[in-house]
Amino acid sequence: MDELTHKAEMARQASYFLAQAGDPVRSKALESMAKALINHEKEIIEANMEDMEEYQKKFPASPLLDRLVLNENRIKAASEGLIKVSNLPDPIGEVVHGWTTEHGLKIKKIRVPIGVIGAIYESRPNVTIDIAGLAIKSGNAVILRGGSEAVRSNASIGRVLQDSLEGIIDKNAVQVIEDPDRSIVDRMIKLRGLIDVIVPRGSSNFINYIVENSTVPVIETGAGNNHIFVNRDADLEMATRIIVNAKVQRPAVCNAVRKVLIHRDIATEYLPKIVNEMRKYRVKIKGDDLSREIDPTIEPVSDTDWDTEYLDLTLAIKIVNSVEDAVRHINQHGTKHSEAIITKNISDAEYFTNNVDAACTYVNASIRFTDGEQFGFGAEVGISTQKLHARGPMGIKELTTTKYIIYGDGQVRQI
Amino acid sequence: MDELTHKAEMARQASYFLAQAGDPVRSKALESMAKALINHEKEIIEANMEDMEEYQKKFPASPLLDRLVLNENRIKAASEGLIKVSNLPDPIGEVVHGWTTEHGLKIKKIRVPIGVIGAIYESRPNVTIDIAGLAIKSGNAVILRGGSEAVRSNASIGRVLQDSLEGIIDKNAVQVIEDPDRSIVDRMIKLRGLIDVIVPRGSSNFINYIVENSTVPVIETGAGNNHIFVNRDADLEMATRIIVNAKVQRPAVCNAVRKVLIHRDIATEYLPKIVNEMRKYRVKIKGDDLSREIDPTIEPVSDTDWDTEYLDLTLAIKIVNSVEDAVRHINQHGTKHSEAIITKNISDAEYFTNNVDAACTYVNASIRFTDGEQFGFGAEVGISTQKLHARGPMGIKELTTTKYIIYGDGQVRQI
Repeated sequence: MDELTHKAEMARQASYFLAQAGDPVRSKALESMAKALINHEKEIIEANMEDMEEYQKKFPASPLLDRLVLNENRIKAASEGLIKVSNLPDPIGEVVHGWTTEHGLKIKKIRVPIGVIGAIYESRPNVTIDIAGLAIKSGNAVILRGGSEAVRSNASIGRVLQDSLEGIIDKNAVQVIEDPDRSIVDRMIKLRGLIDVIVPRGSSNFINYIVENSTVPVIETGAGNNHIFVNRDADLEMATRIIVNAKVQRPAVCNAVRKVLIHRDIATEYLPKIVNEMRKYRVKIKGDDLSREIDPTIEPVSDTDWDTEYLDLTLAIKIVNSVEDAVRHINQHGTKHSEAIITKNISDAEYFTNNVDAACTYVNASIRFTDGEQFGFGAEVGISTQKLHARGPMGIKELTTTKYIIYGDGQVRQI
Repeated sequence: MDELTHKAEMARQASYFLAQAGDPVRSKALESMAKALINHEKEIIEANMEDMEEYQKKFPASPLLDRLVLNENRIKAASEGLIKVSNLPDPIGEVVHGWTTEHGLKIKKIRVPIGVIGAIYESRPNVTIDIAGLAIKSGNAVILRGGSEAVRSNASIGRVLQDSLEGIIDKNAVQVIEDPDRSIVDRMIKLRGLIDVIVPRGSSNFINYIVENSTVPVIETGAGNNHIFVNRDADLEMATRIIVNAKVQRPAVCNAVRKVLIHRDIATEYLPKIVNEMRKYRVKIKGDDLSREIDPTIEPVSDTDWDTEYLDLTLAIKIVNSVEDAVRHINQHGTKHSEAIITKNISDAEYFTNNVDAACTYVNASIRFTDGEQFGFGAEVGISTQKLHARGPMGIKELTTTKYIIYGDGQVRQI
C-alpha cells in the first residue's frame, strides 16, 4: 500500500478513537504538542534550514522566502497558539437543538467531529501546527500536505507532534504526507470515504483546481478582491488610517484591500489626500475616468482591474454615486471575503452590511481583522469564502458536524 | 442566451431582492402558492396525465408510475405542506453568536439565505412544490430541474407558482427548467457563481455522477444501506413491529431497512420468528453462515450483499457477537443514513448512538421517521448523508448560511 492510502486509513481508524475521547484528553494532547515543539525546536529549525537552502538555490532573493522561515519566535508563537486552542470551550457533545415530535420521539441534534480532515497548503510550515491543533481539539484526525518547498520542515514537525501524542491519544490522528510528488494531491482529493473534507489554502488557481477536481467535499478558502467604501459623511482621517493599514501592512495576504470606492460628494476633497498618503508607502494608484479627472497622474484601470486581486502595493480607486452604487459594484466584482464601509450614518451602514454578499462586512474598522486569531479562535484552518458549512475564519467549531440521536419506545410510522 | 443561463441569471437577481424581504412577505408568497395550486389543479392534472400517458407507452406496467402521479389528493397535500412551511419560525436574521473582541470590535454572526439553490431530481413532481416552498421561505431563489418524464407536470407547476408570486415577490425567484435534454444537468452543475449549491436527489449512480462532476458545491443526499440491530435484551415483539414497518411499508425509499443484525444470544429464538413474519409479506431472506445454520432455507449472501441497498422486498440477516460487533459492521458497510438498535439497556443504547457514524441513530423506533415532514420541518429538500453543512433531513434552516457583521470605531490591526 502506498504512503498516502496507508496514512489515510490509519487516520480514519484514529478518528473513531478520537471522537470518543473527552475534552480533557484532547486538551492534554495539545499541551503535549505545544511542549514538544519547544523541546525539539532545534531539530525542526535544522530541517527548516535545509528547506530554505534548497529554496534559495532555486529562487534566489525571492520575497516569498520569509513565509518559509521557522525560527525560535515563530515556533514559540505556534506553540502558544496550541495552548490557546487547548483552553477553548469544547465544541463536541453540545446539544444544538432538541425536541419531542408529535409521535413522542425524542430527537437530539448533537455536535460531533467531522472525522478526517485533509489540508492542502503552501509554504508556511506553521500552518501544519495550527491545523493539527485545531483538528485534535475538535476530535478530528488530520492529513496534512504542505508545499514541497517545506517538505523537510513539515516532516520534522510531523514526527515531533506524533511522538508527543504517545500515551495520550492514538498518534495516528496526525499524519504528515512526506512524499513531495505533486500527484499526491490529485490522489488525495479523490479519497472519498477516507477523507471527509478537503481544505485547500493557496492561490486562486490552486484552489480552483482543487474545487474542480476533488470528489471529496471541499471548503473553499479564499481570494480577497476586497473593497473599502468611503461614504460622503466618513471621518476622513479614520478612513485614511484604515486604508493604509489594510493596504500596506501585508499587501500579499487575502484580507488586504485592493480597491477603494469614494463617494462622489467628497471625491474632490478626499481623493488627492488618499493618493498622496498612499504614495508615501510607494503604493501604485490606478483609477477610473472620474478619478483621473481629479488627478491626471493616476494610471487608468484596464478592463480586468476590477476583478483582479492585487497581491502587491497596487490600489485602484473608483468614484461612486451612492452606497447603493458601491454595493452593486462590490457584489459584481468582489470575491465575498471582506468588505468595509467608512461612515457615520446608521442607515447607510445597515444597508451596506445587509446587502453586501461577503463572509465579513465591516463598519469603521480595518478588514485586516478577518483572521481566526483576531476573531478569538486561537488559530484558523483557513478563511472560507463559500457559503456552505463555514463562512469566514474557520476555527474548531467549523471542524464539527452534527448527528441526530432519536429515542422512541416502539414507534413505527403510520404512512 | 440559452434557457438555463437566462433563468439562472434572473434567479440570481431575484435572490438579492428576496434576501431583504421580511418573513411576512415570504410567508405570504407561500400562502399564495398554496392557494394557486388548488385553483389551478385542473390544468396541472391535465399536464400530468400527458406525462403519464407518454411514460406508460415507454414503460408499460412500470411500478414506478405511481411516483409520477399528481392527483387532487397529492396536490392538496403539497399545498398544505406549503402552509405548514409558511407558519414555521423565520430562520433569517437570527444572531447565531455575538461577541466583542479584545480590540473592541463588535462581531455578530447572523443567519442569511444561501442565495440560489439548484435542485436536480427525478420523477415525483410534488418535489417541485416542496423545494420551491422551502427555498422561498428561507429567502432563497431556486432553479428546479425535475426528471424528463415529468417535464409537462413540472412546467405547469412552475407557471402556476410563478404567476402566484406576482405582486408579492419577484416571480423570477422560482425557475423551472423545461428543456428535457440531459445535457442541461451537465451545464447546470458547472454554473459556479450563478448557483450557490446543488442538491441532487435520485439513485446512487446519479448522485455520484453529480458529486464527481459538479464545480458548484453539492449537498449529497443519500442512499440508505440501513441496519436494525436486535440486542440480546430487546423486546422482541417491538423489534418485529419495527422491522416490519421499516422493511415492508415502502421498500424502495431511502429510509427503509436493508439488513437486520441479531445478537447471537437470542439468534436461535428470534431468527425463526422474524423470518416467518417477513415471509408473510413475501420478503426474500438472505443470511450469513450462522443464520443458515439456524434456518437452512435462508439463501446465502454473496460478497456484495453487505454493501447493497436493496430497493425491493429483500432483507439480509447477520448474527453478531455484541453491540461492538454490530457497530463495527455498520460503520464498515453502512451509508451513514439511518441506523437503529432495539434494546432495553442504557449503556448499549449509548454505545450504539455514540459510535455509529450516521446522520440519524435510533433507539427503539422505526428508521422510517428519517424524513423532514416527520421531523416537523413541514417538508424536506432531501436527506443529507454527508457531513458538511447539513446532515439528515434538510428543511429551511439547512438552506441558510451565516455572515459576520463587524462594527468598530476606527480600529486597525497592530501586527
